[in-house]
Amino acid sequence: MKKVSSLSELGLGDDVSRAFFRPLQQAAPPSPTKRQIKISVIGTGNVGMAIAQTILTQDLADELALVDAKPDKLRGEMLDLQHAAAFLPRTKICASPDYAVTAASDLCIITAGARQIAGESRLDLVQRNLALFREIVPPLARYSPDALLLVVSNPVDVLTYIAWKLSGFPPNRVIGSGTNLDSSRFRFLLADHLEVNAQDVQAYMVGEHGDSSVALWSSISVGGVPVLSSLEKHQIAYEAEVLESIRKAVVGSAYEVIRLKGYTSWAIGYSVASLARSLLRDQHRIHPVSLLAKGFYGIPDDHEVFLSLPARLGRGGVLSVANVQLTDEESNRLRSSAHTLWEIQRQLGI
Amino acid sequence: MKKVSSLSELGLGDDVSRAFFRPLQQAAPPSPTKRQIKISVIGTGNVGMAIAQTILTQDLADELALVDAKPDKLRGEMLDLQHAAAFLPRTKICASPDYAVTAASDLCIITAGARQIAGESRLDLVQRNLALFREIVPPLARYSPDALLLVVSNPVDVLTYIAWKLSGFPPNRVIGSGTNLDSSRFRFLLADHLEVNAQDVQAYMVGEHGDSSVALWSSISVGGVPVLSSLEKHQIAYEAEVLESIRKAVVGSAYEVIRLKGYTSWAIGYSVASLARSLLRDQHRIHPVSLLAKGFYGIPDDHEVFLSLPARLGRGGVLSVANVQLTDEESNRLRSSAHTLWEIQRQLGI
Amino acid sequence: MKKVSSLSELGLGDDVSRAFFRPLQQAAPPSPTKRQIKISVIGTGNVGMAIAQTILTQDLADELALVDAKPDKLRGEMLDLQHAAAFLPRTKICASPDYAVTAASDLCIITAGARQIAGESRLDLVQRNLALFREIVPPLARYSPDALLLVVSNPVDVLTYIAWKLSGFPPNRVIGSGTNLDSSRFRFLLADHLEVNAQDVQAYMVGEHGDSSVALWSSISVGGVPVLSSLEKHQIAYEAEVLESIRKAVVGSAYEVIRLKGYTSWAIGYSVASLARSLLRDQHRIHPVSLLAKGFYGIPDDHEVFLSLPARLGRGGVLSVANVQLTDEESNRLRSSAHTLWEIQRQLGI
Amino acid sequence: MKKVSSLSELGLGDDVSRAFFRPLQQAAPPSPTKRQIKISVIGTGNVGMAIAQTILTQDLADELALVDAKPDKLRGEMLDLQHAAAFLPRTKICASPDYAVTAASDLCIITAGARQIAGESRLDLVQRNLALFREIVPPLARYSPDALLLVVSNPVDVLTYIAWKLSGFPPNRVIGSGTNLDSSRFRFLLADHLEVNAQDVQAYMVGEHGDSSVALWSSISVGGVPVLSSLEKHQIAYEAEVLESIRKAVVGSAYEVIRLKGYTSWAIGYSVASLARSLLRDQHRIHPVSLLAKGFYGIPDDHEVFLSLPARLGRGGVLSVANVQLTDEESNRLRSSAHTLWEIQRQLGI
Repeated sequence: MKKVSSLSELGLGDDVSRAFFRPLQQAAPPSPTKRQIKISVIGTGNVGMAIAQTILTQDLADELALVDAKPDKLRGEMLDLQHAAAFLPRTKICASPDYAVTAASDLCIITAGARQIAGESRLDLVQRNLALFREIVPPLARYSPDALLLVVSNPVDVLTYIAWKLSGFPPNRVIGSGTNLDSSRFRFLLADHLEVNAQDVQAYMVGEHGDSSVALWSSISVGGVPVLSSLEKHQIAYEAEVLESIRKAVVGSAYEVIRLKGYTSWAIGYSVASLARSLLRDQHRIHPVSLLAKGFYGIPDDHEVFLSLPARLGRGGVLSVANVQLTDEESNRLRSSAHTLWEIQRQLGI
Repeated sequence: MKKVSSLSELGLGDDVSRAFFRPLQQAAPPSPTKRQIKISVIGTGNVGMAIAQTILTQDLADELALVDAKPDKLRGEMLDLQHAAAFLPRTKICASPDYAVTAASDLCIITAGARQIAGESRLDLVQRNLALFREIVPPLARYSPDALLLVVSNPVDVLTYIAWKLSGFPPNRVIGSGTNLDSSRFRFLLADHLEVNAQDVQAYMVGEHGDSSVALWSSISVGGVPVLSSLEKHQIAYEAEVLESIRKAVVGSAYEVIRLKGYTSWAIGYSVASLARSLLRDQHRIHPVSLLAKGFYGIPDDHEVFLSLPARLGRGGVLSVANVQLTDEESNRLRSSAHTLWEIQRQLGI
Repeated sequence: MKKVSSLSELGLGDDVSRAFFRPLQQAAPPSPTKRQIKISVIGTGNVGMAIAQTILTQDLADELALVDAKPDKLRGEMLDLQHAAAFLPRTKICASPDYAVTAASDLCIITAGARQIAGESRLDLVQRNLALFREIVPPLARYSPDALLLVVSNPVDVLTYIAWKLSGFPPNRVIGSGTNLDSSRFRFLLADHLEVNAQDVQAYMVGEHGDSSVALWSSISVGGVPVLSSLEKHQIAYEAEVLESIRKAVVGSAYEVIRLKGYTSWAIGYSVASLARSLLRDQHRIHPVSLLAKGFYGIPDDHEVFLSLPARLGRGGVLSVANVQLTDEESNRLRSSAHTLWEIQRQLGI
Repeated sequence: MKKVSSLSELGLGDDVSRAFFRPLQQAAPPSPTKRQIKISVIGTGNVGMAIAQTILTQDLADELALVDAKPDKLRGEMLDLQHAAAFLPRTKICASPDYAVTAASDLCIITAGARQIAGESRLDLVQRNLALFREIVPPLARYSPDALLLVVSNPVDVLTYIAWKLSGFPPNRVIGSGTNLDSSRFRFLLADHLEVNAQDVQAYMVGEHGDSSVALWSSISVGGVPVLSSLEKHQIAYEAEVLESIRKAVVGSAYEVIRLKGYTSWAIGYSVASLARSLLRDQHRIHPVSLLAKGFYGIPDDHEVFLSLPARLGRGGVLSVANVQLTDEESNRLRSSAHTLWEIQRQLGI
């Protein structure tokens, strides 16, 4: 049987529509300036689809465009979302391997990326992803010159830098998902232990996404109670190595999920949807995301690296960076990450 | 490094909690009758997880329990959902291969099931799934004797019958997801063609889920305009074979998604979440679901088969069945499906 | 004590903000084309505020502007909404007696209007409201030339015509709330009687809002079951006067609420919020609203009257009108209302 | 014309329902243990109705019961909410002057109360409200012995004590709305000044609701940045009197709204809905609410007073109290309020 996915393919013509609806007399066409919110997701793997589906469920977009190099997978995912129409607000969902489908997006989310091959150096991985981003970012920027770019692919900090360079966008419009999810994992561990809602735990992981991330112990508070000073006041002994083991537990929890189910998807989907909401609905919420970090915490102005810092996000992208106090050790680790990333980036030749 | 997923594994004791929170004087423990909504999902494959994640995003449960025979996959999925805590309302998420984790559920959703092997007869497939359901349904019924059972595994109509028999529950508390999703696909095709919101299209697929389902043409209306009579009034010719090709397009769209992406997940996730909401929030909404159909439309009282009919769903399960008028041909097809299913079921020996 | 409503009035300068947030290097200002959804509500009486608050709770706007001639009441309502900031998504809420506050709205909702004085003729009431609308509509149209206009003030059909004339807008962008709420009351009465969700009841009141409205009996269906034909099939006798008494019960229920509590507010708030959502999120849902009805159902082309008909609503306003079949009696009543309204309008001198 | 608000009053009998829906064979009645969430609101003035409507819009209850001594007003408000059925999830809404309508509530919210008469002493006002609460609380407690009691009427701290005494409930199940709204106003002022989302501002007002409330300056943080220490670090001078003027601005903003519009309603509606959600959905969120404060911060154990402190709220009511560090001055003010309230309460004779 021929597969059809719309009735017009069955020969049902416009006369059927006309039988149901009639136009108003003297009606004028909608003004072209009346824009709706459009989000594009590049890459329809587990991460891209978890993001797309969460955005759809949370009703964050009026139009959702999917792009992937595999046309079958792409069309299958599009149809699977479209079939839920009766259970959701009306959202236009389209998909194509051609970037023209992303035209006039407000937000482009890049999840495509090569995975690390066993034995491959970090630089080689970045080089492969650079080649991929050369095919992705320029058409995105051309079709949506006013869009925000949100990079999710890993290694996220270097790839956000690459997306910034390839797009030619101002840095406030190029953001990496960075440690937004690490921070949620951090909050979950603390909230779970204290049996309190994670939204009442303020706790940030910053810096480089991954093994070198920095836990901002001094900024942690629970319901208005600063954690470290409270433990001190109650004479509860804690040692630096306990804190470090908690930080490692946060970092390790991502690896654990990958080991157990093969990949992570749901949490990154929720994390990126929360960023999309703060950005597109101009929420001015504070999220730790990967942003152009030069000049912060002693990172030299010529080190054009992206690292996660708590930022106020809105319709203009990164509106500003929160002035969190770091200990000397914390800012040292930031600068060390900046240096490492800058060394890698200098070898990329962009 | 040792993987930890809670801070108490790191040796952070209860004294830390006590440093943050103090009890009220004279406080009494919460009454055991103060129940929250608990949903269990059996099977954490693509379908089960799409359902679980949609239920979580839509905030339909206070507690979510996952069961699967594969402990690694199970724990990975649980952690991946838990890590999103900072982006979601607080929901208790637990997982175990042991059905004790489902105790006192309000709704148990069964998505586990063997897939058809090439060349396997339908009866053989059902026999294999019967063996599986013998391990699933009795412990579910024992741990949650007041729960609603919602069967999603295929072939859904026979398996819903099996779940009914194995549970010993009254029939209003045993439901198959049936043609609820087929009906959404039907509505999407019509709504997409007419550029109208699918929620303003009333259209039902009923009967056996799959190739033999019945499209209720006479009940279709769009914004209060009955479809068939409207086409007639505008002298738009349509032929029985066009209608049949539309029905086949609906049925075929599920196969198309499977061919393209390997399985279906998102749409069934939304479909089942919509059922969960109607049931647990006592919405009295009408959904076509698989229910004990004997006595309806001439199906003999001794044919204890489950087929999809539009039903009013609420906290008690199936509250009643809508009295939709069928044409003779439509009710013939229903009875024919009923007969086929009954023949299969008689050979099962339960 | 001096009343302050922002901290800058207390002498807290910009240096405080700078202590918390620092800008990104090389950041570019947000593009002026990045628009958010802005809704203005004119009139902050019970109806206007129920609308404004429901729009806020349902998160339908990024910016909400209130206008009223009474500055104290206006400012009090604005502050009362703003004080809930910690419980709601961030929405910019502003208020002023000056229409400049409405600039660049996507939707302007007019609830201001003179109430009928005892003994006053309908024409005199309309004349007084015409004078009021001459102060409201031209500045709204000037400050938001691309907006949709939604008229809620009564008598809604004539006032929507007046708003259309005074705005110079194309008719698809000028809508009266009309019988959208009457239809919800109709659905509630039917749904309550049948113990079914009102969203599964399709039932429209059309025509003139108020005593002369028309109940479209032939279009009523419940869960795909047409009401009248179903009653006939079950040989349930009903008489024309029973149907008419149901219609009168719907119309009377508005008067009953006014008699009991002095005014209506909540239901009209929800009704108008549902229209705002369908319009601004381009939902293509079908609502019975007051629209330019000439040419429909035999209303002469020179009768530029607004009457409620089921319309498909989207970002462009009224996208089209559903082709509902009326009985001769129903279309006679529509034409009769059209004639009455046209006679009134001809005496207005606009 | 006779006013009807349901079709059965028009003589439409059960045969009509039967024409639409048929029962399942062998269906069993729903188990009586399958409870839904029921909320009762006592008092249908501006505050009570803003609460009821926000609870309805936010879909927090399956059943909503309204009680008021004025039957006309009460019925008018009930109908006005019911008429929105087509725009909302299905919620059972009932109303009666008889407390039987509240039976088996999960949460009872008391908004009824006498207002202060010019020249009346605070003690006289409390005495009048004590008389009122003697009519309200005992029947509430009798009809819903397991409910949570949430007192909104003013003076809220004394009236919460009275409700506790009259109910005989354990103290964790009797809560006053206290400074939850004051804290939101505090956050709004800070967030508005810093152009950041109020949900990223942690700031508490505690103690006695009203003029003597205490702003916890040391617990304020914005996006992980503690306010006072940050200002110090940036050498921004602030003086105790500036902080006090900010506190007074928060307290004064309630009076300002009352002066401008005559009462407050929307913000208290959102505030109480947020409490209802944290309580009934077991959110473990931290809210400053009025609770039995004896033993905290040096308040003597024989002073059975209710004052606001940041508390972790869940299905059991107040789960625990956050261990916020107060300065000596702050805890002195708390004890002073406790002493004042205890003196008043001792004169009440309950």
